[in-house]
Amino acid sequence: MKEKEQGLLIVLSGPSGVGKGTVCAALRKRDIPFVYSVSATTRPPREGEVDGVNYFFTTKEKFEEMIKRDELLEWAQYVNHYYGTPRRYVEEQLSAGRDVLLEIEVQGALQVKKKFPHGIFIFLMPPSLKELEHRIVSRGTESRDVIQNRMVMAREELEMMKYYDYVVVNDKVELACDRIEAIILAEHCKRERMMKHYITALEEEK
Amino acid sequence: MKEKEQGLLIVLSGPSGVGKGTVCAALRKRDIPFVYSVSATTRPPREGEVDGVNYFFTTKEKFEEMIKRDELLEWAQYVNHYYGTPRRYVEEQLSAGRDVLLEIEVQGALQVKKKFPHGIFIFLMPPSLKELEHRIVSRGTESRDVIQNRMVMAREELEMMKYYDYVVVNDKVELACDRIEAIILAEHCKRERMMKHYITALEEEK
Repeated sequence: MKEKEQGLLIVLSGPSGVGKGTVCAALRKRDIPFVYSVSATTRPPREGEVDGVNYFFTTKEKFEEMIKRDELLEWAQYVNHYYGTPRRYVEEQLSAGRDVLLEIEVQGALQVKKKFPHGIFIFLMPPSLKELEHRIVSRGTESRDVIQNRMVMAREELEMMKYYDYVVVNDKVELACDRIEAIILAEHCKRERMMKHYITALEEEK
Repeated sequence: MKEKEQGLLIVLSGPSGVGKGTVCAALRKRDIPFVYSVSATTRPPREGEVDGVNYFFTTKEKFEEMIKRDELLEWAQYVNHYYGTPRRYVEEQLSAGRDVLLEIEVQGALQVKKKFPHGIFIFLMPPSLKELEHRIVSRGTESRDVIQNRMVMAREELEMMKYYDYVVVNDKVELACDRIEAIILAEHCKRERMMKHYITALEEEK
């Protein structure tokens, strides 16, 4: 019996404000055969965000219950809110041979790396720190204190780049998407993964 | 003083008859910023092949002189002809920060790997051995003995896949080109390579 090939777990992360959400939204418009993991969070929805699509919006109490039951692949507390990834959905999709894209904060990505060391870890990077500050400020939803707090955190998060496999500069959204798409396609061509197909192909001809 | 970043050496190889030349010709029509290395050979030109473009066509005596002087990055004797890669051109291009694509036979690729272990080694693979035989036969330029000889060699060459970084199936030429293009773009996003840019970027802002 042939073993069902696992899908790839692709983790897209990077400092707050770098544009992870925007890049993911642009990726969704492309014809890429992967599934998006949906995170759970206790932060209130931003305008236009839909429950079950952008996030599962939940309460602090329910979130802490999920932590206790080990139902989260990763979780983090960030600017007084919880963010986390429900574990079961991701594992089911991977087992079915589907690639899964996780868009998460840097802290969470490092937790996932411990559980899925063979995942593909992509760090989305701002073209510069100045540009990052500009993006956070122009979002206009944060107070001055929160912005300063985020910039301090961003510098720390940039240091975490060293734990990632790939670094994608988000200079232009479409270029960032091209790079991410290329990384996924290239990873599928890695020799370790392709050897299995080759062995099967030769066996069938004997 | 900033160190000039080296280009990537991309080695495209695979069994005889798999379609390396066809894939390379299709890649040339795309807007990919890399330079093609031109091999030297003692085999006679096929119809349409141009000296200095497809190969440097040379004599056995001159080729053996180049081997003696260590002017070849790799060389091989194959169906009674020499094939090899002039070393200087490749090294100059890499030092100038340009990516270089080498399209060579499997034996040669393994020699290059010893000299450039950090090169990107891509193995072009036929969809099946039957399809490979079909391609060699339909080329119509080879005798029955040569074809059988090639098929024996092809099976041996397929074993060499294990020394490569990536395996690209040449099911359709344009799909194979998409995969190769993705591999090169992804390799440029590898964290080890991007870290340098990031360090430079942060230093400039201090």
